[in-house]
Amino acid sequence: MGSEPSDRRRDKAANLGVTPQGEDFSAWYNELVLKAELADRPPKVKGAMVIRPYGYRIWELLQEQLDRRFKDTGHVNAYFPLLIPMSYLQREAEHVEGFSPELAVVTHAGGEELEEPLVVRPTSETVIGEMYAKWISSWRDLPVLINQWANVVRWELRPRLFLRTTEFLWQEGHTAHADRDDAMAETMRMLDVYEEVARDVAAIPVVPGEKTPGERFAGAVATFTIEGMMRDGRALQSGTSHYMGTNFARAFDIMFQDPDGVRQHCHTTSWGMSTRMIGAVIMAHGDDKGLVLPPRLAPHQVVVVPIGRDDAATAAAEELATAARKVGVRVHVDRREASPGFKFNDWELKGVPLRIELGPRDLAAGTAVLVARIGEAGKQTVNLDGLAASLPARLDAYHDELLGRAEAFLAARRAGVDDWDAFATRVVDGWADALHCGRPACEDDIKAASGATPRCIPSAAPPEEGACIRCGLPSAWGRRLVFARAY
Amino acid sequence: MGSEPSDRRRDKAANLGVTPQGEDFSAWYNELVLKAELADRPPKVKGAMVIRPYGYRIWELLQEQLDRRFKDTGHVNAYFPLLIPMSYLQREAEHVEGFSPELAVVTHAGGEELEEPLVVRPTSETVIGEMYAKWISSWRDLPVLINQWANVVRWELRPRLFLRTTEFLWQEGHTAHADRDDAMAETMRMLDVYEEVARDVAAIPVVPGEKTPGERFAGAVATFTIEGMMRDGRALQSGTSHYMGTNFARAFDIMFQDPDGVRQHCHTTSWGMSTRMIGAVIMAHGDDKGLVLPPRLAPHQVVVVPIGRDDAATAAAEELATAARKVGVRVHVDRREASPGFKFNDWELKGVPLRIELGPRDLAAGTAVLVARIGEAGKQTVNLDGLAASLPARLDAYHDELLGRAEAFLAARRAGVDDWDAFATRVVDGWADALHCGRPACEDDIKAASGATPRCIPSAAPPEEGACIRCGLPSAWGRRLVFARAY
Repeated sequence: MGSEPSDRRRDKAANLGVTPQGEDFSAWYNELVLKAELADRPPKVKGAMVIRPYGYRIWELLQEQLDRRFKDTGHVNAYFPLLIPMSYLQREAEHVEGFSPELAVVTHAGGEELEEPLVVRPTSETVIGEMYAKWISSWRDLPVLINQWANVVRWELRPRLFLRTTEFLWQEGHTAHADRDDAMAETMRMLDVYEEVARDVAAIPVVPGEKTPGERFAGAVATFTIEGMMRDGRALQSGTSHYMGTNFARAFDIMFQDPDGVRQHCHTTSWGMSTRMIGAVIMAHGDDKGLVLPPRLAPHQVVVVPIGRDDAATAAAEELATAARKVGVRVHVDRREASPGFKFNDWELKGVPLRIELGPRDLAAGTAVLVARIGEAGKQTVNLDGLAASLPARLDAYHDELLGRAEAFLAARRAGVDDWDAFATRVVDGWADALHCGRPACEDDIKAASGATPRCIPSAAPPEEGACIRCGLPSAWGRRLVFARAY
Repeated sequence: MGSEPSDRRRDKAANLGVTPQGEDFSAWYNELVLKAELADRPPKVKGAMVIRPYGYRIWELLQEQLDRRFKDTGHVNAYFPLLIPMSYLQREAEHVEGFSPELAVVTHAGGEELEEPLVVRPTSETVIGEMYAKWISSWRDLPVLINQWANVVRWELRPRLFLRTTEFLWQEGHTAHADRDDAMAETMRMLDVYEEVARDVAAIPVVPGEKTPGERFAGAVATFTIEGMMRDGRALQSGTSHYMGTNFARAFDIMFQDPDGVRQHCHTTSWGMSTRMIGAVIMAHGDDKGLVLPPRLAPHQVVVVPIGRDDAATAAAEELATAARKVGVRVHVDRREASPGFKFNDWELKGVPLRIELGPRDLAAGTAVLVARIGEAGKQTVNLDGLAASLPARLDAYHDELLGRAEAFLAARRAGVDDWDAFATRVVDGWADALHCGRPACEDDIKAASGATPRCIPSAAPPEEGACIRCGLPSAWGRRLVFARAY
C-alpha cells in the first residue's frame, strides 16, 4: 500500500511492539489495530472509525469473495436509501423496539426542520419491505434475491474498532419467497456461504447454529449464526442469517397472487456479514508479533525485501515480483530506506504470510531466503529458479496450516461439560457445550455468574436430553448449546 | 437480472412505450428510468432513490472500470465516517458556506440529544483533512493518494432520479502533495481518467476544461470538469477534479517537514464521479424505443431469445450463451413465457446492444438472426458456427459506432458564435463556443436571457481574444468558453 503514509515512527522499531496477548488481550487488540494501520479514530467523534487502506484492502478482498458467491447463488445487488422515515420502522413492532435505543436521527435538512424525522438506517428490512410490496404481485415474481453493500449506523456506547463502532460497513441480503420451505432453504444456503467464507477464505473454523430467542434479530422467527473462537477463547458472532416468517410481509403488505389466484404473504429472509469480520481475522489468528493474515485476505501475500544497497538485489526482487504477479500472487517489493531488521518486524506486525529476503550472497548462489509468518516451514533457503511459480501452492499450504492451527485451538478449548464447576472453568478461556432448560431467566443467571451466554444451538450437535447445566430442570433444545463469553 | 421481479405489467406490451423525446424529453427520461427498472422512488420520502438491480449493475460495471484505473495510477481505497461534526466543516469558511444549505443534520442519537450536531457527509474533505493532519509529518509520507467509495447526502429541492437526489453514490479521491506542480499534475491526471472512462467505457465524448469561479467547488482554487452533451442538446457535468491549493491544508493543519527540515502546508486535490453518470448514459444515447446502453456498461451485452416452444432452440441458446461467456461476454438467455415480440420490445427498452434470435428454421439452417440495437448492422442472418467467438469484436464495433454517433451529434449541435442572436439560438438545443468578459454579473445576465451557463473553458480551445458575446467588454479567459443549458 505504497501510497498511504506510514506511521511517522517508522524508524523506531521499538515502537512496533504491542502488549503481549497473555498480559492484556484487549490492549493487544487496540494497539495492533492502530499500529498495523488497519483503522484509526477521528478526533472528537466518539465511536467513529476510519478504515485505513491496509484494513480496507482486507475488506475489499472479503467483498470479492462474498459477492462472487452471492452472484453464483442467483443474487443481484441493488441500493436502497440511507435515510428511512421513522414511520417505516414503526410498522414492525418488535423491530422498532429492538433498534430504537441505537438510532441516529436526522431532524433537520436543507435548513429546515423535517416534518417527519429520518432514521439513519441501522438495517434495511423496512425500506426494502416497502419496495418489495410495490414490486411483487405474482408468484412469477418470486423468489426475489437482492443483496445490498452499504454502511449502517447503530449508536454504540462502548465502541471498539471493527467490533462495535457507531457506523460499520456490511452487506445485507433481503429475499422474498412463496413459502416457508423456500425461505428456510435460502436462510440456510446463505449461512453455508458464510461458513465456507470463514473457513476457506478467512481460515476461521466456525460453529454454525441457531440462536436462542433472547439473541434473535428483532422481528425474526429464527436467527442463525456462525461463531468463531478468538485467541482469548471468547466467541465472536461473524455472520447471521434470519428467517422472518411472514412478520415483515404482514407489516409491509408484501403479497403475491399464487397460481390459483389466491393472495398470500411472502416469507422473507435477511442475512449479513460486516467489517466486524476484520476484527475476527485479527483476533482468531494474531499473536504477540502482530497480525497473522490468511493469504486469501492478505493485501500483500508475499513481500520481497532486497538486502543491501546493491541494485542487483532490487532488480532481482522486482523480477521475482513480476513473475509472481503473473501467477496471480499479490506481491509487494519493500524498497524503503530502512534496515532489513525494521522491515522484517514491520511485515510481521502486518501479518504478511510469506517474506522473501534477497541479498547479494543469495543472488550469487541463485537462492533466496523464504520465511513463513507462522508454522512448520519457518525459515528456509530455496532456489530462485521456480520460486515465483511455487508461490500459489505455498500460499494454499499456508492457508491449510493456519486453518489447522485454528481448528486445533478450538478443539483444545471447547468441551462438553456436565456440571457447573466444569462449566465455569471452561468458559474462562474457552467454550462449553452444555444442556440448558431454555428459560431466559436461567440464561441471565448463567451470564451473571460466569459471563457466558448461549452462542448457538449447533446444527451439527447430536440429539441429547438431560438436566440443565445451571438449574437442573429438563433440557429444552434436544441437544447441547455452545456457551461462551462473547464480543 | 433474473432474480429481480419484473414489472407486473410484463404482459402488456403497450405499457412498455415511453413518451417520445421530441414531445417531452423530461417525461421521456422519467418514464424510461422507471420502466426500464433502473431506479424507483420509495413512498413518502421526497428526493430519495432506490437503485434497482438493472441500474445498480451499470454502476458496478462503471465502478470496476474506475477502480482499476485508480489503482493503476497508484491510489488505494479507504473509508471515512459518514457523520461529521459540524465544527469540522466550519474550519474552511468557503466550504461550509457552500454546503450549508444542502446539509442533513443528525441532532439525536442513542436516545439523547447530541452535544454537537453531526452532519451527514455531503463530501469528505473535512474529515479526511483531520486525518491527513494526523497521518502526514514528513515529505517521505507524500504523496498520499486515497480514494473512497461512499454515499453522500445533499438536500435537493427539485429531485430527479440519478441527476439530483438527496443521496447518491460516488467515489471521492483525496490526495495530498508536497507542492503545486505535483497536485496540479494529479488534478489533471484524474480529469484525464474521467475523460477516458466517459469516452472508452460510456461512449460519451466529453469536453474537458476549467470551470469559471462561479461554478467552482466550495473551497477550491481551480475546478475542472468533463461536460457531456445529452440528446436534447443540454450539457451534463459528468465528473470533476479540484485543485485546492493550500486552502484545506491551512484549515486543517495538513503539514509536512521538507528535506531541509522546514514545515510546509500540503497542496491537496479531490475528484469525483457519481451515479449521475448513469443519468448521462441514459440521456446521451437513449431514443424513443428506450435505453441504448454502451456495451462496456451493459448488464447484458447480448440477449438470446429462443423462438417457439421447441426445446432444441432453448438448448442451442444455452449452448451459445455458454460459449459466449467463455470469451468474456455478458449474455442472458430469455426463457420467459412471453411472446417474442414482447421480448424484443422489452430488450430494446432496456438498451441491450445485441439480440440473437434462434428459431427452429434458423437452427435447421445452422444460422441465427442477429439484431443490433442501433446502427448500420441492423438485422442480419449469421452463421451459428463462430458466432460466439465473434461477439467481442462485434461489441467493440458497436461501442465505436455508438461513440461515433455521439461525436457526430455533438459536432452538429456545437458551434462557435460571435453575436448574441446566434448564441441564443444555438443554446436552445446545443452548445455555443463564445468569448466572455469574465464578470459574474454578465454570466447571470446570460443565464436570465437564454438559460445558458458557462460549462467550462475547454482545455483544447485555441487562444483567442475579442468582445464578450453579451456585453461587448474585452474577453477575459484568452479563449472561448462553452455555454449551454445544463442539468
